[in-house]
Amino acid sequence: MFTRIDHIGIACRDLDATAAFYRRVYGFEIAHEEVNEEQGVREAMLEVNGTSDGHRTCIQLLEPIRADSPVAKFLDSRGEGVHHIAFGTPDVRGASADVREAGVRVLDAEPRRGTSGSAIAFLHPKDCGGVLTELVQAPEAADPT
Amino acid sequence: MFTRIDHIGIACRDLDATAAFYRRVYGFEIAHEEVNEEQGVREAMLEVNGTSDGHRTCIQLLEPIRADSPVAKFLDSRGEGVHHIAFGTPDVRGASADVREAGVRVLDAEPRRGTSGSAIAFLHPKDCGGVLTELVQAPEAADPT
Ligand SMILES: [Co+2]
Ligand SMILES: [Co+2]
Repeated sequence: MFTRIDHIGIACRDLDATAAFYRRVYGFEIAHEEVNEEQGVREAMLEVNGTSDGHRTCIQLLEPIRADSPVAKFLDSRGEGVHHIAFGTPDVRGASADVREAGVRVLDAEPRRGTSGSAIAFLHPKDCGGVLTELVQAPEAADPT
Repeated sequence: MFTRIDHIGIACRDLDATAAFYRRVYGFEIAHEEVNEEQGVREAMLEVNGTSDGHRTCIQLLEPIRADSPVAKFLDSRGEGVHHIAFGTPDVRGASADVREAGVRVLDAEPRRGTSGSAIAFLHPKDCGGVLTELVQAPEAADPT
């Protein structure tokens, strides 16, 4: 059901500077950039490697675009650093139902729009050992509506 | 130089319970378990997916085995959650030199022993946007001495 680590989400105050750091130090290039108004972030996906399920694993950099966004609040309380991790699944709706059945609170009753039109759902970090966890279905197969 | 996300290191208070959670909810199995006396942790590697460089990406669970270990201190100050991320490289010694050259403090002057005899080096989180970052060379090719 969960076939890859899709990405690691990292909260930063300056997306361009942080992307430049990852490029300069590690050689990771920006594969995609967008603004997600709903989540209140500007984000960049940096590709690191391909995965055995035919997708890839990325570093996702997140910069808040407003002070009341969850990422802005995270930066205020914890500072820059890892914000969440994301597992890839071919079926985010079914995966969310299974995870809920296993006793984990799914924060999104319906999958919502993630990067590049992916379908995503977040799990409650208190039910996941302190780890904010995202489930993501890649855009090719995504049908969030 | 950096060809995969090798693992995500997660600090927990109860390794067995946390491994059982990852198995039950996501289906990730323990690929390897060991005690690292030097780092003061008991750890488990849970395999998630294969990678395009011929290795794999894992979740690494870390439980402190003594109160003065870095992971114990992390748990005291931050609670359970993501502790570090690790990038895989075929040459941890060369990668450490390059990263140091790029102005990032490498915490280990010489690579030390990681999981299953891998060779690892940690980077200063303050130089990496708040992310404790590990460089890891897989055991097949590792020669830390
Ligand atoms: Co994400
Ligand atoms: Co590690």
